[in-house]
Amino acid sequence: MSEDWKAARQKVEDLVEESKNMPDLAETDYLEEREELTEERILEMLEERQYKELKEELENNMYPIDLADILENFDQKHLVMVFRLLAKEEAAETFTYMNSDMRELLINALTDSELEEVMEEMYLDDTVDVLEEMPANVVDRLLMATDEETRVQINQLLQYPEDSAGSVMNVDYIALRKEMTVAESILKIRQVGINKETIYTCYVTEKRKLIGQVDVKELLTTSESKTVEEIMDTNMLYAHTTDDQEDVARTITKYGLIALPIVDHEMCMVGIVTVDDAMVVLQEETTEDISIMAGVNPNEETYFGTTVLEHVKSRIPWLLFLMLSATVTQMIMNSYEAALAVMPQLAGFIPMLTGTGGNCGSQSSTLVIRGLAVGEIEFKDLFKVIWKEVRIAVCISLILSVVNGLRILLMGQGDAMMAFTIGLTMACTVVIAKVVGCTLPLLAKKVGLDPAIMATPLISTLVDISTISVYFAIVSTAFAL
Amino acid sequence: MSEDWKAARQKVEDLVEESKNMPDLAETDYLEEREELTEERILEMLEERQYKELKEELENNMYPIDLADILENFDQKHLVMVFRLLAKEEAAETFTYMNSDMRELLINALTDSELEEVMEEMYLDDTVDVLEEMPANVVDRLLMATDEETRVQINQLLQYPEDSAGSVMNVDYIALRKEMTVAESILKIRQVGINKETIYTCYVTEKRKLIGQVDVKELLTTSESKTVEEIMDTNMLYAHTTDDQEDVARTITKYGLIALPIVDHEMCMVGIVTVDDAMVVLQEETTEDISIMAGVNPNEETYFGTTVLEHVKSRIPWLLFLMLSATVTQMIMNSYEAALAVMPQLAGFIPMLTGTGGNCGSQSSTLVIRGLAVGEIEFKDLFKVIWKEVRIAVCISLILSVVNGLRILLMGQGDAMMAFTIGLTMACTVVIAKVVGCTLPLLAKKVGLDPAIMATPLISTLVDISTISVYFAIVSTAFAL
Repeated sequence: MSEDWKAARQKVEDLVEESKNMPDLAETDYLEEREELTEERILEMLEERQYKELKEELENNMYPIDLADILENFDQKHLVMVFRLLAKEEAAETFTYMNSDMRELLINALTDSELEEVMEEMYLDDTVDVLEEMPANVVDRLLMATDEETRVQINQLLQYPEDSAGSVMNVDYIALRKEMTVAESILKIRQVGINKETIYTCYVTEKRKLIGQVDVKELLTTSESKTVEEIMDTNMLYAHTTDDQEDVARTITKYGLIALPIVDHEMCMVGIVTVDDAMVVLQEETTEDISIMAGVNPNEETYFGTTVLEHVKSRIPWLLFLMLSATVTQMIMNSYEAALAVMPQLAGFIPMLTGTGGNCGSQSSTLVIRGLAVGEIEFKDLFKVIWKEVRIAVCISLILSVVNGLRILLMGQGDAMMAFTIGLTMACTVVIAKVVGCTLPLLAKKVGLDPAIMATPLISTLVDISTISVYFAIVSTAFAL
Repeated sequence: MSEDWKAARQKVEDLVEESKNMPDLAETDYLEEREELTEERILEMLEERQYKELKEELENNMYPIDLADILENFDQKHLVMVFRLLAKEEAAETFTYMNSDMRELLINALTDSELEEVMEEMYLDDTVDVLEEMPANVVDRLLMATDEETRVQINQLLQYPEDSAGSVMNVDYIALRKEMTVAESILKIRQVGINKETIYTCYVTEKRKLIGQVDVKELLTTSESKTVEEIMDTNMLYAHTTDDQEDVARTITKYGLIALPIVDHEMCMVGIVTVDDAMVVLQEETTEDISIMAGVNPNEETYFGTTVLEHVKSRIPWLLFLMLSATVTQMIMNSYEAALAVMPQLAGFIPMLTGTGGNCGSQSSTLVIRGLAVGEIEFKDLFKVIWKEVRIAVCISLILSVVNGLRILLMGQGDAMMAFTIGLTMACTVVIAKVVGCTLPLLAKKVGLDPAIMATPLISTLVDISTISVYFAIVSTAFAL
């Protein structure tokens, strides 16, 4: 390290040391510690009719997403009372975070004009989400509360396939023309920006077709007399309405975007997907992947939001399928009944062998499934992956066989021959498990299935079958059974 | 549906139908289809000395993250040639996306002044990431290429613990004073904004302490004569430098933020974490969770970036531990050797029972681990979760026992007594597996361990032991063995 660097480091360390001895003024002085606005406190304030105070507290000391969470436990009367205390924007945002039961409760209690106000404040993509979950009579009331133009847009959004970019996009964005100057553009943002979810990326269109994009950062830091055409980026990323929402979200993550423009098949700009929606999509898709990997059919609800019977319904198919597949293992073992009668201690090794095989297989399948999900591994890497896994398997099987052989000898569970045959079975199991584990997800991807279904449970069952076949083939030869 | 709504829907459908018959002009007319700039094409252009054309192509037709990916396969000579063709900003961004081997190769080939330019263009958080991975001699050269002030800041960032908010934050943000007018604020953004990673949220500080925040959207859509104090949001979210980076990322996702301010223990503003960094953090943390759930110790590298030996090292500990734990299962089975010698067909049911138990357990543990990760489930929900899982387990065990009993009778694998005992074992196994599966992750969380280590492999092994104990206890009673 250079002397300069050392001196700088020392200086910083001194400062840090010094600051530790200073009194902690901040939290009391600058951000007064507010009493947390809990469920109990809100109910208490309602009881005591402190409406004005509650209104203020809700405005200054509460986020819509947290409020929606709290309101979940309220009855209709209290729910509506709190809701009427909220400012329009907060009311609409809180509404979008509620679950469908609460939304229905609330819609039934609000007057038509109140409903209209909420619908006006909501972003169109959220409105569509709400409509998709409501029963027909509620949908009717909600649609009556929106104007004609909005209804046409809603209808259009409802037509995009589920999980497509079109179904999650927002149709409110700022469009500029290439002849506009920077000053004119900023003026336009001033005029229309208040109703847009994001103003930070503006899109340049010509006859509705997307031809470029400009960041507000760019607009704010360039000369006001330049034209949009001079500063716009024409090498921008975009997606089509029918693209998978997960791909769109991955693009937004990969390139660190605030929003991605969505175009139709004629390159006409129809909407944007914003980074906050992308994060929600990714979180949902990851939960879905993880559920499938554990043999649970995913649903859109949360753990507690799913009833016991729905949980049973989403877990039983794989359990039944895998239980019945185990019949194959059983048939193989039964055909070696005679051998087991002679050497019953052979059965004792089976859980260890199948367990190790299952664990090896799920290690490989999980890493490959994740690699596919984040875009690191593709089908064309199949042989590269297999070659890597085979080498890993050889190393692992050597270590496990030797450790296990020593264990057998030390614990007196068998002679050298037993240690050797179990070791050989172990080695074969590890190699088969790793190859099967890394191959299946790639093949699933290739034929258009979700790679996640190839995870742990299915791999374990396949590996069980091959392990037991190999095991009995080896021991019956070795011990001439 | 109302008539209006039907009419609107019909109109849209007509339009959609119509548009299908229109020729697809867009892609040819507006965005000319460019030849993709592949690895081969870049090498070809270098060979043919088309430097000017390549420079243009790189500028208009390539993203830094994709270029870094392509350059991975280049040798030092070609790497440096391409790098020198890039504009300063693109060069710096491409550099941040490179892996450490490539960075070292490049640093060794660049002149001091070239290096200085790259360092100047890089955001400080990226610089720190680079420094942390480089060998000492390279670090020295890099630090020589930065100015004194930057070096002090780098040193400060290097002192934050790994995975803390401080270690991922960016120290470049826009600070405003509360007395400033909107017009003055916009002017300040104009002057200093060009060097900031995000300008879209500005922070209001007083004696360095964070007292509020203002969105640029707010600044652009309010009267220019208002003061910052009038429009600033004082109920803003923030995190401390020592907070876990995953918590920071979850807050950014939950509240849909573009950036979260980071303060020290005195509420002094020290930096921001932006949404794009949050997305990277979440992706890494999810990959880590998924790896741990499959019994693989996570590392920071990608699948292909990890050598065979490193893969072995990260997979062998759990495999060894679980293999040796299976000794317990084996000892239980060996104590029933006499029973197995009499009824060897008993062994055949073992893989099915342990397999089903393992699958049931991993379903529950996985859902609970994910619930913990996204913040839906907390330790205080322990009994709520157990009660839910017990009810689910009762339903599932009924279905599985009946189906399996019928299978045994139909396939002639045993009599009614056998069907009953296997069914009873199955029912106990499912209940135990579900309860163990949902409890362990919550307990792990409580004692400060990563819940993910309680996933599939460990649960399977525990369930194996309890299944086999229950199985032999039941059959030895039923058949008086």
